Amino acid sequence: MKLKDIGEFGFIDRIEPLCKVHSANIVRGIGDDCAVISVSPELNLLITTDLLVERVHFLLDWQGPDTLGAKALAVNLSDIAACGGTPKEAFVSIAVPDHLEINWLENFYKGMADLADKFKVSILGGDTTRSLTDLVINVAVTGLSRSGETLLRRSAQPRDVIAVTGSLGDSAAGLELLRNSLEVPETVATPLIKAHLSPSPHLLQGQMLAKSGACNAAIDISDGLSSDLNHICKQSGLGATIFEEKLPISKALRQLARRLSVDPIDWIINGGEDYVLLAAIKPDKYEELAQKALIEGYQLTEIGRFESTVGINLVRVSGEILPVMPSGWDHFRRKATSETI
Amino acid sequence: MKLKDIGEFGFIDRIEPLCKVHSANIVRGIGDDCAVISVSPELNLLITTDLLVERVHFLLDWQGPDTLGAKALAVNLSDIAACGGTPKEAFVSIAVPDHLEINWLENFYKGMADLADKFKVSILGGDTTRSLTDLVINVAVTGLSRSGETLLRRSAQPRDVIAVTGSLGDSAAGLELLRNSLEVPETVATPLIKAHLSPSPHLLQGQMLAKSGACNAAIDISDGLSSDLNHICKQSGLGATIFEEKLPISKALRQLARRLSVDPIDWIINGGEDYVLLAAIKPDKYEELAQKALIEGYQLTEIGRFESTVGINLVRVSGEILPVMPSGWDHFRRKATSETI
Repeated sequence: MKLKDIGEFGFIDRIEPLCKVHSANIVRGIGDDCAVISVSPELNLLITTDLLVERVHFLLDWQGPDTLGAKALAVNLSDIAACGGTPKEAFVSIAVPDHLEINWLENFYKGMADLADKFKVSILGGDTTRSLTDLVINVAVTGLSRSGETLLRRSAQPRDVIAVTGSLGDSAAGLELLRNSLEVPETVATPLIKAHLSPSPHLLQGQMLAKSGACNAAIDISDGLSSDLNHICKQSGLGATIFEEKLPISKALRQLARRLSVDPIDWIINGGEDYVLLAAIKPDKYEELAQKALIEGYQLTEIGRFESTVGINLVRVSGEILPVMPSGWDHFRRKATSETI
Repeated sequence: MKLKDIGEFGFIDRIEPLCKVHSANIVRGIGDDCAVISVSPELNLLITTDLLVERVHFLLDWQGPDTLGAKALAVNLSDIAACGGTPKEAFVSIAVPDHLEINWLENFYKGMADLADKFKVSILGGDTTRSLTDLVINVAVTGLSRSGETLLRRSAQPRDVIAVTGSLGDSAAGLELLRNSLEVPETVATPLIKAHLSPSPHLLQGQMLAKSGACNAAIDISDGLSSDLNHICKQSGLGATIFEEKLPISKALRQLARRLSVDPIDWIINGGEDYVLLAAIKPDKYEELAQKALIEGYQLTEIGRFESTVGINLVRVSGEILPVMPSGWDHFRRKATSETI
């Protein structure tokens, strides 16, 4: 049996029992956006790590070293954002194929350091080694959050509002544009491709949610809405209903879908790499929080409700109700980047 | 210009200025065995990470998944040991080629979890993704150490005793045996190959050094004695003299050298992957500490002295004095594993 037969999450379920927890300070281990460790009565340490592999997650032809460096950090910062934390330190491991120039690597670090500076993250080390084939990048990031304000996946409640902090599907559409040469005006293509190559971690949004006292649970949408909503549902023992008409879609994505005569719903539901936050908000606090977000310049959009009955349903604009399967991104079950272009 | 032209350490020197430190709590960033972050007046958080790449660091033909899993963790625990710390949590990122069986992966995690349990380390997560070619493993480990007892590289003093916590060169000789089919009795080959495939992190030795108050600086010998002693010398602004006759050599290595009629000095000085600790011990405290180590069942061997004059010299048994260049392991300057077998 291979990984493709059970997928990443099936595999995690199998190895989790092997990994014993040896300390009472561990609030959350495997299975959330970050590991959460109590370091004082007031503070939790957050730790997350993400591995990016050439030809699986990215192609060097698609982007310069600066945006790749920034993205390798951003995807980790997004995990800290999902816990409502403040990122602190980053550790960069990189396996470098012989053909890469020092100049390329310096620009990779410059791109990462610029994003790190923006959020006052210190890059403190890592490991540099050789690769005989693909470039491989692992970034680990630490963060801090207040004990009472750390957002987890497992604590959503029935009737909580499901809200997202940005539009969905842009990154998946951008990936499609990178893979296929489609005749699309620059005003449509540029923001979608940018959404894929240069995601912005929603750290300030995560901190606002954490401080509000109105948010019961959160996750970042990295694998896709269907998969990530399923993570929260599974861990909270809930189901959910989402409404197509409420899903926030960017102007560029709407234009692309119209131009190609395709339904953008698959990008929106299963696309992945959106790096917006999905939050479970107490229903009686939602309106006030959404107003506050608006004033502070953040987007917060209600897309549905958590339910006590297991299963996720999508109510389409037509009124049709479709069950949603967690079929977002899983590298073992989808073709890798280089095989599909 | 490529990485092979400047090596890993030349590259680190170039990117270090790009990486700004944004917090006053950071005791040590890039350039030590661990990053050291003050989390309270009494405690430092230690963080280290190591990347292992198939065909560069290991071949799957050489060892089972259990010892590979254990080694991927052990090399990080050795960094925590070098700072005198207690390891706490581990995070495992793995890029898996399609041909690997789930069974293999489970045994990989079992091997790692067994070593983790031995030192009460909790494996708390990481990232599992796909690789189109080589297996890639990144492990990040956190640890704790008391603020006054954290061992760094930069604080060795002139006349400090240079001591090591185990024998040198076994791992390099074991690698040689794995690469070449040499006719060697099992009693000679087995311990050397084991030293390479299953290193034991010297955590208890590191903690003893840290608590003794006698140790000014420490490092783990991962790149090789010449390189790692050079790191301490460079960061402490010192030189060193080491004595061939004092270098601890195992019986198996001595027998192998005799059998092959080779001088083992290159394995000892430049071999790498010994994962013993090298420490700078206050001269007036050394004897007492060595006695204490003996009683507690640890090896501590004086191999030379730090000097105020820059440069490392080796006094050979013949009396000849040779300058030692830092020519230990550097993946960018040596051939990779798969190219040399």
